[in-house]
Amino acid sequence: MSLSNCVNLNNSNLDGMSSDFLYHLNINVANTKDTQDIQKQFGDVRVICMGGTGRRMLELAKYLRLKLGISGEGEPIDLCEAGHRYTVYKVGPVLCASHGVGSSTCSVVLHELLKLVKYAKCQDPIFLRIGTCGGLGVKPGTVVVTKDAYNGYLRNEHEIPILGERVVRPASFHEQLIEDIVKYGTQADDGFETIKANTMSTDCFYEGQGRTDGAVCQYTEEQKMKFLQTAYEKGIRNIEMEATMMASLTLMAGVRAGDICVTLVNRLNGDQVTITMDEKHEFEERPFLIVGRFIKHLLNN
Amino acid sequence: MSLSNCVNLNNSNLDGMSSDFLYHLNINVANTKDTQDIQKQFGDVRVICMGGTGRRMLELAKYLRLKLGISGEGEPIDLCEAGHRYTVYKVGPVLCASHGVGSSTCSVVLHELLKLVKYAKCQDPIFLRIGTCGGLGVKPGTVVVTKDAYNGYLRNEHEIPILGERVVRPASFHEQLIEDIVKYGTQADDGFETIKANTMSTDCFYEGQGRTDGAVCQYTEEQKMKFLQTAYEKGIRNIEMEATMMASLTLMAGVRAGDICVTLVNRLNGDQVTITMDEKHEFEERPFLIVGRFIKHLLNN
Repeated sequence: MSLSNCVNLNNSNLDGMSSDFLYHLNINVANTKDTQDIQKQFGDVRVICMGGTGRRMLELAKYLRLKLGISGEGEPIDLCEAGHRYTVYKVGPVLCASHGVGSSTCSVVLHELLKLVKYAKCQDPIFLRIGTCGGLGVKPGTVVVTKDAYNGYLRNEHEIPILGERVVRPASFHEQLIEDIVKYGTQADDGFETIKANTMSTDCFYEGQGRTDGAVCQYTEEQKMKFLQTAYEKGIRNIEMEATMMASLTLMAGVRAGDICVTLVNRLNGDQVTITMDEKHEFEERPFLIVGRFIKHLLNN
Repeated sequence: MSLSNCVNLNNSNLDGMSSDFLYHLNINVANTKDTQDIQKQFGDVRVICMGGTGRRMLELAKYLRLKLGISGEGEPIDLCEAGHRYTVYKVGPVLCASHGVGSSTCSVVLHELLKLVKYAKCQDPIFLRIGTCGGLGVKPGTVVVTKDAYNGYLRNEHEIPILGERVVRPASFHEQLIEDIVKYGTQADDGFETIKANTMSTDCFYEGQGRTDGAVCQYTEEQKMKFLQTAYEKGIRNIEMEATMMASLTLMAGVRAGDICVTLVNRLNGDQVTITMDEKHEFEERPFLIVGRFIKHLLNN
């Protein structure tokens, strides 16, 4: 197998390890020098889709089976069930992995999936996050493909404490990949809009996103609206909890990545999610449609 | 019902809301002025146990049924199943709620559980996190009850961006509560140690905790050991991903809280978790034992 498009992670220590237990995925790489078992199981993976809930990833796996015409009997199998934390389904060359809510949990599984694609010698794998989010000045149901990811300080960067020091890293997604994805979301009869825009990403759903309906709130409605307006002026059209971490970590790892989220609420009109469960379910399927088209095109070329 | 020991949250906006949809728990408080339904269902709750995985919370619910002598047929029911994100079981006056990995996801459910106990008019509820963690200079299997929570900058505080500004909050747990909990973990025939110590809490399991086996690592083993040694000198004996957020948010909300974690690895000896799944399972039950004794005593007094 050609090594030219394999993932070269930014960590030389991994080469010195004889084995690697991907703890939260419960996948044991027993021999890092000879990963034929892992290559056999995962070596064909081209796209890793990630999303918040296991249920949604199961639905995505079923959707992609149909869309990509990949055979499979019965329910897709959760490959990481024994780890009890994340669910991972494999549909041909696509993994569908859950990551929970927010960057702390998403970071754990992303580190381990990045090591997995390295050991499996996957060729130029693409990481796509498929999520739900709050919107900013866009109609609920709009799909936003993230360009630049902003943190809770409204800065286009990811901040992380490493060995006690504040480390600041760039947090943008792959430009050409974004263009390619957006292209598959602009079909006239979709009945919804897909836009390329900036995303704010926070570690706290309530205070971090300027909501006034959390357990704690020490600011006024007026201060909140001023903050959301400033975010809007920076080209931010949606708010979620993973983008800055995901953009910065995939940039560090040298893999292409995208973040495709559907908005469930327009935060300029209120904080509470008021759509029905049926509407929510229909909205959640919109990124499936776009990502499904994108992957189908990718695999056929 | 006496209102004297109800939870008074630090958010006057909640009083102005006619209804409140606890979105991630999928619990609808249809009328915040008359919460009799919610009081009927949750008003007797005295203790809210939280832990990473739904599976462990189910095991805890079953354990507490036996330990507290609370009747119940069949499997405990997940009250938040329709939300697809968190699991919540109720065993008499105890809730057992999953929170996922790390403070971002834990913060979401903690905000909503705090609002739930407010609306339900629970009397002086206690929040206990029961987790697994890395250890620092202690034998794997040791249970650590957190005193002061330190962030990744080795500061005893929680940092959170709110409306674009850096907000720093105290992050310590309730002293008397800690003493009470530790007391139930010092029985001679337990076969393990329970200690009161400081905890480091990070948003990243790999780089944030100074691991050298993540997808990315830009420091040496020597620099890592120096960092862990500095942490040790600050009285830190375990490392997890929720303590600073939990301590600061419960302090802000004016409720008592504790964090009780079992160590799975001694980070001074290495980064990888090498215990067997059976050992891990046995270790995970140790905090159950302590918390079970504590709750039994609490309910009998």
